Formats: sequence, structure tokens, C-alpha cells
Amino acid sequence: MYIRGVGRTRFGALNLSLPELMYDSVMEALSDSRLESRDIDAAIVSCFAPERFQSQLHINSMVSSLFQVNKLPVFRVEAACASGGVAVNQACHLARAFENVLVVGVEKMSSVASRDATSILGLALDKRYEQEEGMIFPAAYALIAQQHFLKFGSNPEDLALVSLKNHSNANKNELAHFYRKRVDLEDIRNSMPVSSPLRLFDCCPMSDGAASLVISARKTCDRDIRILGSSVRTDNLSLVDREDLTSFTAARLAARDAYSQAGIRPKDISFAEVHDCFTIAELIAMEDLDLCERGGSAGLVRKGETSLDGSIPVNTDGGLKADGHPIGATGIAQIVESVKQLRGEAGRRQIDDPVYGLTHNIGGIGGTAVVHILGAG
Amino acid sequence: MYIRGVGRTRFGALNLSLPELMYDSVMEALSDSRLESRDIDAAIVSCFAPERFQSQLHINSMVSSLFQVNKLPVFRVEAACASGGVAVNQACHLARAFENVLVVGVEKMSSVASRDATSILGLALDKRYEQEEGMIFPAAYALIAQQHFLKFGSNPEDLALVSLKNHSNANKNELAHFYRKRVDLEDIRNSMPVSSPLRLFDCCPMSDGAASLVISARKTCDRDIRILGSSVRTDNLSLVDREDLTSFTAARLAARDAYSQAGIRPKDISFAEVHDCFTIAELIAMEDLDLCERGGSAGLVRKGETSLDGSIPVNTDGGLKADGHPIGATGIAQIVESVKQLRGEAGRRQIDDPVYGLTHNIGGIGGTAVVHILGAG
Repeated sequence: MYIRGVGRTRFGALNLSLPELMYDSVMEALSDSRLESRDIDAAIVSCFAPERFQSQLHINSMVSSLFQVNKLPVFRVEAACASGGVAVNQACHLARAFENVLVVGVEKMSSVASRDATSILGLALDKRYEQEEGMIFPAAYALIAQQHFLKFGSNPEDLALVSLKNHSNANKNELAHFYRKRVDLEDIRNSMPVSSPLRLFDCCPMSDGAASLVISARKTCDRDIRILGSSVRTDNLSLVDREDLTSFTAARLAARDAYSQAGIRPKDISFAEVHDCFTIAELIAMEDLDLCERGGSAGLVRKGETSLDGSIPVNTDGGLKADGHPIGATGIAQIVESVKQLRGEAGRRQIDDPVYGLTHNIGGIGGTAVVHILGAG
Repeated sequence: MYIRGVGRTRFGALNLSLPELMYDSVMEALSDSRLESRDIDAAIVSCFAPERFQSQLHINSMVSSLFQVNKLPVFRVEAACASGGVAVNQACHLARAFENVLVVGVEKMSSVASRDATSILGLALDKRYEQEEGMIFPAAYALIAQQHFLKFGSNPEDLALVSLKNHSNANKNELAHFYRKRVDLEDIRNSMPVSSPLRLFDCCPMSDGAASLVISARKTCDRDIRILGSSVRTDNLSLVDREDLTSFTAARLAARDAYSQAGIRPKDISFAEVHDCFTIAELIAMEDLDLCERGGSAGLVRKGETSLDGSIPVNTDGGLKADGHPIGATGIAQIVESVKQLRGEAGRRQIDDPVYGLTHNIGGIGGTAVVHILGAG
């Protein structure tokens, strides 16, 4: 499968509606693909909770309304924060039957107060074992961070370095939620505790935004980027049913699938866009993806190896932490960034001669995991 | 594609939770397929609004929790009341990559009051043009009924005959919501007006229930039922953007696709399971599916041609009206009924020697439409 073109909006608290966000990103992806809307044969929209944020379900039909041609087959997928990655995987399946498959991911979160948004995100946690016991995502990831600290000797300073690096990358990404925000280590260390050991700067923001791409089974030109591996795996919904809090089995399995499909090894990866909803999640992702040994992620971060000029740059666009996390768009935006890096179009954050890019998108606390591996066509 | 096995729960207000409903129907489908859960390679779950009815999203991960094997790829789709049909269509795409694809559709609606359920269903209407103007589904379909009456001379008595026939069929379906309810024409004519000209007996109930099936690309035994056609089409979300209220363009296009894929004509269809969320929708479905000419549906109903012993039986299981309408399960239950008819396992409601069955599942007011055509393997 090939990605013909990509598009995305700025991420942040935006004065744009859900359909406007979708429209803008889709139009850019079509233009980048040298296609018009009538060339699209099927579409997938990923959105986490439009019924809570916008009182609107049935948004596959809304996508049909936006593009007044063809009465296309349009599908909506939801898989918590992995909705975007799952949509891309589904599009790969659809592209066996349809020539040009449009994928658009979107979330408009600033329509509710932050506290309410946290509750809405909590709907992705197990109702009986987690929601009703007061569990929210920052608390879940705080438990995970504490376990990682205990087991591997990582510490809050490692998390601060992850945050600093992602904010620094976002400063080179004019579409990022925190493009203009200057953040130093002192800001991070002194930020408000959210759920100890996680502070405000360990947590991704609530963002509005959309990201789009067009997938086709055949290569159409040299700008096309190839999807070499695509895998979705799932795990138990509730943390109480997991054997280990410091690794997500679904992510390990999805990575194994994707490496196998691509016929490459972890050391071949040039850069990775990983699901850093909280800074600790970036450390765990690196380990689950075998970009380092178990417990070895903090060491790489301390040596600067995950920076833009390091041996394995991670979250070149700023990640969920600083680029932003408009839920339904996130997994697609990771692929948009990967396409830009592989085409050499990433501007001030361009890394040197990337060959293979990897994206890692997580739903819930690892209940869903999606891994993609991309390479130049 | 082939359907290896099917299963479903009773429909109605049930003392079973969302996961219990899924579990029961999946276990029956696996048993009917002569498979065990470890034989499943991927799964799709369709559910309309679990976040409203159960405060639970991310139910693809819940499906993974229910079947403690393989950490499968599991996907959730939502397309309003067409969620189930869309899931089956998606499963056909997935079955090119995975050997046995499980589809489970579910909705647990009795967890909220009927009035609240009506509001939740309304989330599938356009927020700006419909929801905020007070539109609800019974009112939308009342407008459609009035237009059909004006244009084609159909009348409330025709709707009553549809209701009577579907209740009569449900009396032969021990899993139906209204299996035990005896309904005569006087009950229907004298029932409470909901949104004139629609009365209570013109409206489907709020049901709990689940339905499941297993799809495979290859035929495994003579009991397998073949999917000869499968199409999803969409249209504008809002009624104000439609050219005609008495026909759903998306349904006409999906039917055209499905007939073309199957290589058969409408007159070859032995029976049809259509989306009678309101009785008027059954008349429109028959016309959109070319089972009769435009405006000809009421005539067929008056002559009894859509009854079990008629020339084109419609909604042999009782339809949404009397079998019930657990949103995410409905489109799958239509296929479960079709499989039972084609296998000759439909008991007291079995029709004579069916060759081709058709299912028609609608989301919103025609914003999504799914048509499947099935035949003996």
C-alpha cells in the first residue's frame, strides 16, 4: 500500500468546527495527492467521542455531506486514542477493493471544559473496574511510571528530558499546539503535580485538529510513501487484567507483526513517532518497539539519542506532548509526520536521510495498539 | 465470502449486561461455526452509543477481554442504525487478510429511560439543522410518511398492515422482542399517536440484544451461506439536503451495487429483511430495492404478497418493528435470519425453498445504507 498524499490542520484550541477541521485537512491531502474529491472511492473517518464533544454521531454521513460526490462508502472507526492508527490499518484493507481510500481523523475537544474532557477520555477505561473506582488516565499512567521507576531505575528527571525534547521539536513545527511555547527544564520540574510522579508537563494537552491521507494499492509517483507494515492488536480493557504494568503486550505484538511484514529489524528504523500521551508512555513505547532493551529507554534519553540529531529520533513533530493530541487525528498525524520526514519535507525538524519510519499509536492503557512501518516508495 | 455460523440473543428488555449479551451471541455463533474462540483471527464489533447507554467506549478492547486468546485485531464501527450492516461489509474486506473473522453487534438500551433513549438516537441526526431544531426520528419519518401518502396514495391503513404482518411473524420467532405479544388491527389503529401519522405500533421498540456471525473467504461445508453482494453507500446527513423524501438514494445505490455483484435481478430475491424502524420505512425499502415499482409497495402489502406465504416475504423474523431494534445488532440479526431461512432452519416462519435473501440496513434517515445479498453456498 502507498500513501499518495497527506494533510493536517494546526493543533490547538481552534476556532473551527468539526466539519471545518475535516474539510481543511482533507482538501490539503487531496491537493498533496494531486486528486480531487471525485477521485476518492471510499473513506474512513476516525473520531473518538463526537457524541460527547459535539452531540453528533453518524459522522460517516457527515463526511459524505462534506464531499458532494459519489455517495461513497464511508466508515467510522473508534478505538479510543488509537482510533487514527486503526483507521489507517482499515484503509489498507479497503484499498484492496477501492482505488483511492481517504482517511480523515478528527477531534474537537475545546468545546468542553478540561475537567469534562478528562471525564470523556475516561470512557475508554473499564466502566466497572476503573471508571467507577475513580480511575482517570493521569492516575493510571502514574501507576505505570512508578512501576517503571521501581523496576528499571528510571526517574522523574528522565520524564522531564522527554518533555523537554518534545517541546523543543514542537518549536520547529509550526502546526504544533505548543509551537510558540518556550519550555525549559525548570518549567517542567516546577510544574503542577497532576498525579504524582506525573506533573503538568508530563501530560499531553487537549487539542482540536484533523489529519488526513490518501491510500492506494498501487504506486503512482516517486513521492508516494510505502506502507511496509501495518498491525492492530488488542488486550484486556482493564489494567487489573494485565500481567505487567511496564509493557503493553498489544504493542509488542503489533510491532512484531509490523517488523515481520516489512522484513526489517528494529535497528533499521530511522525514526519513530510514538504515543506519548504521558512522558512515561514514550519510554515504554521505545522498549515495546525493541528500539532498546527493556529498561534501556531512559539511558537513550539521557544520552540525547532520541533527539533530532540522535541515533533514533523519537517524536520529531513534538509528539502528543507538544504537537498535541486531538484524539481521532493523532494516529494519522503520526503518519503525516512520517511521510514528511521520508520525503525530506520536514523543514527545520528534518532528520538526515531517513529510510524507515515507525508509528506507534495506543488506545486506552494499551487495550489497543497499532504499529505502522513506512519507507520511501 | 461465506458465513460459517450465526448466533443471537433474545431481543427485549433483558437482565444481561453489554459484555454478557456479546458473549452469549458469540458463543452461539462459534458453536454454530464449529469453531472455538482461538480459531478467530480478527473481530469487528458494532455498537451505536455505548458511551451514552453504558458510559463505555473502547469496546473493541472489551471484546478482546471477553475472549482471552490471541490478542486479536479487533475493530469497532459505528454508522448509526446501520452499524451492524457496515460491520458485516467491513468483515468481508478483512476476510481477505484473516481466515475467520468474527462479527458481533450489540446494544443495551434498557439501561436508560425511553425518553432518554430517543434523545440518544437523535445524536445520529444533524446537530445544527435537526437536533437543535427539535427533530427526532419519529418526526422525521412522519414527514416521510406524509410525503409518501401524498405522492403515491398510500395511507395509514397500509402502515397498519405492515405492523400487523411483522407482529404476526414475530409471534413465530421465539427470540423476538414481541414474541408473546398478540396484536390485531384494532390495537394498531387505536394505538397512541407518536408523531402523526405514525402511531405507537408504527414504531420499533428500544431493545437490548446481540447478534454474531463468522465470515471466511473459503467455503468449509455445505451449511455455509455465501455473501454474493455487499455494499455500503452514504448520503447527506441532513434531510434538508435531500432531493426526495420518499426514497433513499444511498439505499438505491447500495442495492444496485449488490445486485450487480451478485449477478441477479430484484425478481430473483426470495425474501428480504428490511430496515423497518418505522412502518413507512418498510414501504420505502421495498421500492428502493426494486422489489416493486416506485409507489407500488402498498399494493403488494394490501395483497399480502409480503407475508410468509406471499410472493416476496419481507421481515420474516418480525423486523425491527416486532423482532426488535438493538441498534448495533440489527444489521447482523437481519443476516442471521437470512442464514436461517436459506438453511431451512427458520422453524415456524420458514418460507418455501428460498434461493436468494436480501438484507437492507439504514443509518439515520438514509445517511448510510447497507445491502447484502446471500445465497446457499
